[in-house]
This record gives sequence, C-alpha cells and structure tokens, in this order.
Amino acid sequence: MARDSSRPVSIDRFAGGAWATTDDEIATEEPLQLLLDGEPLSVIMRTPGNDVELAIGLLHGERVITSLDDVASLRISAEAHETERAVPVASDLIESNAVDVRLRTTAARRPRRSFLSSSACGVCGATTMDDLAHDHAPLADGPVVDARALPPLADRLRERQRLFEKTGGLHAAGLFTADGALITLREDIGRHNAVDKVVGARVLAGETPAVPLLCVSGRIGFEIVQKATVAGIGVLAAVGAPSSLAVDLARRAGLCTAGFVRDGRFVVYAAPERLDGV
Amino acid sequence: MARDSSRPVSIDRFAGGAWATTDDEIATEEPLQLLLDGEPLSVIMRTPGNDVELAIGLLHGERVITSLDDVASLRISAEAHETERAVPVASDLIESNAVDVRLRTTAARRPRRSFLSSSACGVCGATTMDDLAHDHAPLADGPVVDARALPPLADRLRERQRLFEKTGGLHAAGLFTADGALITLREDIGRHNAVDKVVGARVLAGETPAVPLLCVSGRIGFEIVQKATVAGIGVLAAVGAPSSLAVDLARRAGLCTAGFVRDGRFVVYAAPERLDGV
Repeated sequence: MARDSSRPVSIDRFAGGAWATTDDEIATEEPLQLLLDGEPLSVIMRTPGNDVELAIGLLHGERVITSLDDVASLRISAEAHETERAVPVASDLIESNAVDVRLRTTAARRPRRSFLSSSACGVCGATTMDDLAHDHAPLADGPVVDARALPPLADRLRERQRLFEKTGGLHAAGLFTADGALITLREDIGRHNAVDKVVGARVLAGETPAVPLLCVSGRIGFEIVQKATVAGIGVLAAVGAPSSLAVDLARRAGLCTAGFVRDGRFVVYAAPERLDGV
Repeated sequence: MARDSSRPVSIDRFAGGAWATTDDEIATEEPLQLLLDGEPLSVIMRTPGNDVELAIGLLHGERVITSLDDVASLRISAEAHETERAVPVASDLIESNAVDVRLRTTAARRPRRSFLSSSACGVCGATTMDDLAHDHAPLADGPVVDARALPPLADRLRERQRLFEKTGGLHAAGLFTADGALITLREDIGRHNAVDKVVGARVLAGETPAVPLLCVSGRIGFEIVQKATVAGIGVLAAVGAPSSLAVDLARRAGLCTAGFVRDGRFVVYAAPERLDGV
C-alpha cells in the first residue's frame, strides 16, 4: 500500500534558530483520470495506489453501480500494478494515471453530474442543490455495537497508519467488525478517497460494503456521512469533529456518528441507539 | 464572522466509562449555490458568512476575474447580511444560500469547467487533466521575509481562531504583512474556502491579493499552492504537511512553501531564497 504513497524530497529544516538541509518524505498527490465507458468523467486528486478500489468505491458511493455485476470490464494504467482483478481487465492498457470503468449498460445508473470528486469532495460536479439530494432511505436496523469498542478504533487506525506513513500528510479510513477487528485500512491524501478505497475494496471482493464500523482519521463532513450511508455502515467514528450538515444527514439516515474518538472518550452526535451502553 | 459559523447541538459524551447528555457547538456546513450571470455554476459546501468574498475569491483564483472591474453586479441571498458592497447589489434578492455574480462580458474569462469547487477542492469540474493545467508563470521577485517571522504566524492564527471557534472543526487562513501583522483572517469548514475568502476580501476592498505571507491551518495540497500562486503570495506557511504535487508546483512557480510551522520550527519545501536567514 505504501509503495507510491510518499516520495523523498530535500528540505530545509528550521529549528531552535538554526537551519539544516536534509531529506524528508512527502505524501504523494497525483491526478487520476477516471473514465466511464471511455468518456472522461472526473479528475481525482489522490495518492497513487489502489486506484481500481478508488474508482469502484466512488462509483458505488455515487450509486452509479450497486455491485461488481454492474461492471463489464476495466482498463487501468500499465504502471498501476493493481492486484485486484475481480473483473476482466482489457489488454489495451491506457495512459498513465487513469482508470476506465466499462459498465453493463442496462444495469448501471448514469450519473447526473459530469464528474464526481476530487481529493476531498464528492459534491463536485453538482451544479444545483438538487443534484446533492440523494434519496437517503433510513438505514435498516444494524448491529448494536458496544460503546467501549469505539475508543480503541482510533488508536488501532493510527497504529496501523504509522506503519505506512512517514509524511504526516495522509488520511486513513478503516472498516471494522463489531468486535473492533480491522477488516480493511486504506490511506490517501484525500479523506474521501480513503473511504472510497475501503468501500471499493469490499465491492471488488464481491462483498457488500455494509459493515458495523467505519473509522476515519479526519473530520466528518456531509459527504463522508453520505458515503457511509450509501455503503450501509452502522456506526461512523472519527478522530475529528462533524459538521452541522453531516449531523443532520446522519440523524435522518439513522447513522450513528461519533466524533473526537480519542483517549478513551468520544462524542455521539446521531443515532446513539446503535451503541450498547448508552 | 462567527455569526453563522457554529450551531448548538445536543450530544452524548462518553468519558471515563460514563455518559453525559449535554449541549455542544458544531461547525456549520451548508451548500452555497454559485451562479455566473444567472446560470448555475457550482455548489460549494461552506460555512455560511462572507459568501460574497468566497464567490469573488474563488472566481479570482480560477482566473475568471482578475479584479473587481470584471464584475458588473452581484445578487446575494437576503439572509446573507453581507456588508461588502464594493459592487452594485441588485435589488431582486435571490433564494437562500446563493450568490450570483454578473460579469462585464468583454473583460471576464469564461471558465472552462462547468463548476469550480466544493468545501475542499478547486479541482472539481476538471474532466480532463489538461483542465488542471493553469499556466503558472513564475512569481515575480517578492519581498524577502525574515525566517524568524514564520513560527509566530501559526500561533497568531490559532489565537485569533480560538476567539471565534468553539467547534474544533473549522480551518483558518490568514494574510500577513512581511512583519507578521495580520491583515485578514477567515474561517471555513473547507480549507480552500478559507483561502478563497481572504483573497476575495482583498479583491472586494479593491486591493491586489498579493501580500507577503499566507498562513493556513491545515495541510497544503496542489490547489492551495495554485490559489496562492494566482494571488501572488510570496510565502505560503501551513501548520500541516504539503503534498508532492504541491511541492512540485511551488518549486516551479517560485512560491516559498513552509510546512509544520509550529513550536518555533518549520520545514521549507520550495523557494527558500524568499526567506532571509536561510
């Protein structure tokens, strides 16, 4: 995972009034061209690696696809070295930093927006507010999670993240079982991309993305809640704070949303009934 | 500034194994409909307040306008209570959460993208990588800033921010003189919006946005560097880390870029020659 996630760079460090020139690592950010049936759909600023997961997760979150059955084939860049081959990959590899998703036309829902996302947003491409309004059906009754399972999630995320990250610049998203066991962790310079990647990994594995717990390293905006809701997550936990719109949507959808998950404490903003011990 | 930036909410706090239901503040996030000559251009997820600054700063960063001379008039939502009236505001106020910017047709450059930004991105709307490539002329020789002026910037930003923010969820951007005196500070749930707002405030004041120092509370991605470069900033300082693409662009443009500005130290990734004492 960490293969392309950082890059060495020469820096000048100022500390204690003195300068030192040294080498450091910075998080990699590169544009990924996402194509749908060969047509340019969006440019996503992302950390390279797991590009197919990112594309599939993003299309799933936008409800363009509901499962891998909606995907006919994929074309990916030659340098991507992707190991996910759950769907046929055409032999004619395309230019650098690109993923082309070919849909089964009858099954898939065409996006209403011209493009979907960048490193930090899934709202992009909405030209009117109506475009933002997914029809969010309330989540079905999900598994009830023990409240004490939450605080260790953030620590576990950070622990695993420390293994990979040397840059101080990457966000992480992790899917967990109700027991707090890590299912999948992905990193990206974009908070939303990290979520798309873990969801995409599940879809590519032929699994439903719905799991009890999703934990993210950053803050919770509207779109993180939107992605979690579409994915059927039960409890969304974050190290950072949620926004007002995120809380509104989470309450409407019945998505348990906890912020400031750190140091054995957290704050529940929506659907506390999904936590045992409240 | 803080008027609409946070909202009270009832929460369940878990700490030390015990629960307490109490009131808290969360950062406000609402969609802003940006119109250009009455046509929907983009939906921006932002913290309400200074919406005209945001719209003007965004259009400036995207080079749709280069100064207020390119703007014929504005239409803003009735509830916006905007005090910036540097350009005529039409009497027919429009629906909630919207800004309509009317251009002087000959002067302004039409955007190549259908929409521009969300709460955290200005790449949005780019359907191909070519759309991303602004022509970044290297910055002219700017003022040389004393390196020791940098560390206090982040503290000053945080100090001022603490006055406004109760949520833990807002980003800040501040423009500073070469002496480290604060010119303008704005907060927003989106990192990029905060930058657009301080730039927009300068443009609305009839000033060039070019100032010696821009300090941001978060990380530095490609688009923050792009916005700083277009605005003619000399030194970009951030509490967080830069991305690889941000460093690449900053080096090409000659924008001095410093990250991890905290506790009397920082790291320079690009154009150290703009700092005195290196």
